[in-house]
Amino acid sequence: MNEKPPTLGDEIAARISQLGAISETPEYLARVFLTPEHRQAADLILSWMREAGMSAHFDAIGNVCGRYEGDRAGLPCLMLGSHYDTVRDAGKWDGPLGVITAIACVADLNRRGRRLPFAIEIIGFADEEGVRFASTLLGSRAVAGAFDDGVLVARDRDGVSMRDAMVQFGLDPEHIGKAARARRELLGYVELHIEQGPVLEQRGLPVGVVTAISGATRLAASLAGVAGHAGTVPMALRRDALAGAAECIVAIEEFCKRDESGLVGTVGCITALPGATNVIPGKVSFTVDIRAPGDMHRKRAVADVVRRIEAIAERRELALQIDVTHENRSVPCAPWLKSQIADAVTAEGFPVLELASGAGHDGMAMVDITDIGMIFVRCRGGISHNPAEHVDLADADTGARVLLRFIENFRPRNFAT
Amino acid sequence: MNEKPPTLGDEIAARISQLGAISETPEYLARVFLTPEHRQAADLILSWMREAGMSAHFDAIGNVCGRYEGDRAGLPCLMLGSHYDTVRDAGKWDGPLGVITAIACVADLNRRGRRLPFAIEIIGFADEEGVRFASTLLGSRAVAGAFDDGVLVARDRDGVSMRDAMVQFGLDPEHIGKAARARRELLGYVELHIEQGPVLEQRGLPVGVVTAISGATRLAASLAGVAGHAGTVPMALRRDALAGAAECIVAIEEFCKRDESGLVGTVGCITALPGATNVIPGKVSFTVDIRAPGDMHRKRAVADVVRRIEAIAERRELALQIDVTHENRSVPCAPWLKSQIADAVTAEGFPVLELASGAGHDGMAMVDITDIGMIFVRCRGGISHNPAEHVDLADADTGARVLLRFIENFRPRNFAT
Repeated sequence: MNEKPPTLGDEIAARISQLGAISETPEYLARVFLTPEHRQAADLILSWMREAGMSAHFDAIGNVCGRYEGDRAGLPCLMLGSHYDTVRDAGKWDGPLGVITAIACVADLNRRGRRLPFAIEIIGFADEEGVRFASTLLGSRAVAGAFDDGVLVARDRDGVSMRDAMVQFGLDPEHIGKAARARRELLGYVELHIEQGPVLEQRGLPVGVVTAISGATRLAASLAGVAGHAGTVPMALRRDALAGAAECIVAIEEFCKRDESGLVGTVGCITALPGATNVIPGKVSFTVDIRAPGDMHRKRAVADVVRRIEAIAERRELALQIDVTHENRSVPCAPWLKSQIADAVTAEGFPVLELASGAGHDGMAMVDITDIGMIFVRCRGGISHNPAEHVDLADADTGARVLLRFIENFRPRNFAT
Repeated sequence: MNEKPPTLGDEIAARISQLGAISETPEYLARVFLTPEHRQAADLILSWMREAGMSAHFDAIGNVCGRYEGDRAGLPCLMLGSHYDTVRDAGKWDGPLGVITAIACVADLNRRGRRLPFAIEIIGFADEEGVRFASTLLGSRAVAGAFDDGVLVARDRDGVSMRDAMVQFGLDPEHIGKAARARRELLGYVELHIEQGPVLEQRGLPVGVVTAISGATRLAASLAGVAGHAGTVPMALRRDALAGAAECIVAIEEFCKRDESGLVGTVGCITALPGATNVIPGKVSFTVDIRAPGDMHRKRAVADVVRRIEAIAERRELALQIDVTHENRSVPCAPWLKSQIADAVTAEGFPVLELASGAGHDGMAMVDITDIGMIFVRCRGGISHNPAEHVDLADADTGARVLLRFIENFRPRNFAT
C-alpha cells in the first residue's frame, strides 16, 4: 500500500466534523455552556490532547487544558487555543478550528519527538459566545482571573442560574478562581480563528495576521416625531420619524465609508411605530454598532455619528434620545507576536495581509495576563454563525502549517536574538 | 327668561357627545358594523331625523336614511351625509359630524317651515371604515348599487361571516340590492367631514372646499442583500439591505417634497432581518403609500418612485421585489358643486381654500351614481382616528352655517341660471 499520508488539513477537517456532530439537537448545531454536549465535547477534545502527547484536564470553569512540556518540565508556556462552545444554528468552524489546529500542531511535534525551549499549552474555552447566560468570554475571563461572580446569578431561558447549572454540571462555583493563571506562567496567547468576514477571500489569501480586536460602541437611538394620516398631512407639515431615521442611516453609512482605516458602522435593528401602511411613523428606534481598530478612532467616530444624528433630528424637529448601550475597548495584538506570525506566513509562501478583527475573541480577556496574537483563516463568503460556515481543506492545512512554523520558530519576547 | 338661543354648533356638539357614548366598550370608542351599538346609534339618528321633520328608515345594508320633501312630494333630492361607524379607539367626530350637521340644517329649515324646490335626503352610512370585515365603504357601495356580494363571505376576528352577521342583526343579505338608489333620484351628494389633516389649522381657516379625493397606490418593496457580521465586513464589501432601504426612503421623501400639487408619499412599515444589533441586515421590507389629487399625477409619481428604488437597488446590488398591493383611482369633486360650496363659504365671510382629501370617503362610492362635493371642517392638530380628535364648537357651527347656506342656495346642475 502506498497511500498519500494525510495532511494536517485532512485530520483537522475530520475532527471538525466529529466535534460538529455534538449538538443539543440533530437539527442544527448548538453546543452551549454547562450542558451534556459541553461535557461530551470536552471529553473528546481531552482525548485528542492526550493522544497528541499532552497532559490534559478539565478546569474549574469547564475549559479543556492540555500541556505539552518543553525540553524540560515546568517551563513557561506559549498558550494556543480558542473556544469550543457555539451559537445556536452555528457553523462547525468558529472556535473549534483554533483548538483542533493547535492540537494537530502539537501532535505533529510529538510524532517527531520534538521538544521546544518552552512548554505549549492548548486551551479550549468553555464559553466565548455567551449564548446561555448572555455574558460572553466566560472561559477566558476565568483564566485571566477576571471572572465576574455577579454573572453566577444570571439565568438561562429556562430560569436556571449559572450557579445552579455549574453545580448540576459537577463544577463548584466557589472554585472558579482556580482556573486563573498567573502572568509568569505564560509567554503569550495566540489564537487561530476563521476570519468571519470576506477580506481574505476578496484578496485571495488563505491566512491573515490580525492587528487588533476592534473596540465596539453600541448606541440605541430613538426619534419621535408626529404620527399622522399618510393621505392628509402635506409633506411640508410632516415630522416623519422614519424619514429622519433613514437620513441618519444613510449618513452613518456615508461617514463610515469615507473612513479608510477599518471603521465600520451598522444599523442592525429598526422599529417604526405605529407601523401601518397608511400612517406616518411617529416613533422610530434603531441601533448603531460602531467598531474601529483603535479606541481614539472609534470614539471620534462615535462622537461624529452622534453629532450627525443630532443635527438631523434638530433640523427635522424630531425629539432624539440616544444612549450608549455597550462599549468595548480595542485590544491590540502585540507587535512582536504579529511579526513572528507574519514571518511564518511568509515562510509558508504567502503575502502578509494585516487586518483587524471586527468580531470579539477570547484574546480580549487574555490580554489582561499576557500578550496576544491572532491568525485568521479564510472562510467561504465571510459567512459565520451560520450552518453555511465553511473553510476549505487546503486553507485549514495552510493555517495549521503557519501555526506549526510559528510555534517551531517562536522566540519569547525577552529572548535575546 | 332671556337666554341666548343655542347655535347650530351647540346642538351639534351635544349630539356628537351623545352618539360618541354609544360604543362596544366604555374604555374607548368603537362602533362597528352589525353590532348592538350599530343598532343603538341608528335608532338615535333616526329619532333625530324624524324630530327634524324627515321621514326616516333603516335600509337594507343598515344605513339610516331620512327624507325632507321639497316644495312638492317626490322631487329628486340633494343627498347629504357621512358615516356613523368608527374605527376602534376612535374620535367622536370622524363621520358623525357630517350626519349630525346635515340633520341640524334640515331641522333649522323645518323650524322655519322652509321647503325648497328639491328634496333633501340625509344618509348615515353603516360602514365606511371597514373595521369588522376589512372591506371599506360597504354602506355607500350598497347605495351606489356597487356592493360586492363576495364580501359576504368575509369573516370578522371571531370568525363570523358578514352574511351570518347580517342575519343575526335582522337584515337579509339577499336584499342588499334594495339599498341601491337610481341616478335620476339624486341631484348630487355633498358630505361635510373633518379634515383629518393639519392644513386648515395651519391656514387659520374653519372650513375648506374639497377638490378631489386623492387616489392612492400602495407598494410593497423588499430588498435582499447579504447579512453579515457588523464587525467583520468592511464597508466597501457590504450589501446592506437596510442602508439601501434608507436611501429609498430619503429619495421618496425628497421626490414628494419637490412636488407642489398635493403629492404625498409615506413609508409607514419597515422590517429589517435578521434584526440584531451586530448583524448587517440582509433583508428589508417596507411599504410605500403614494397619493395625489389626480390619477395621471399619481401614476407618474409611482413610476418615478419605482424607478428611483430600482436604481438604488441596482447600484447597491440588492435584489428588489416591488409590487402594487392596492390602487384607488382619484375621485374629483364636481366643479359645479365645488363652486356652490365656495359661494357659501364666501357668504359666511371666510376665504375659500381648496384642498384635496388625502383620506378616503363615501363619495368614492357615491360618484358612481351622482356628482359629489365635500366640505372640510378644521380639526385640532389634524388628528383623527384617535380619542384626541377634536373640533371647536365655533368651527362646528361655521361648518353647519356653510352647509345650510349651500342648501338654501343650491341650484341643481341643469338648473338654468
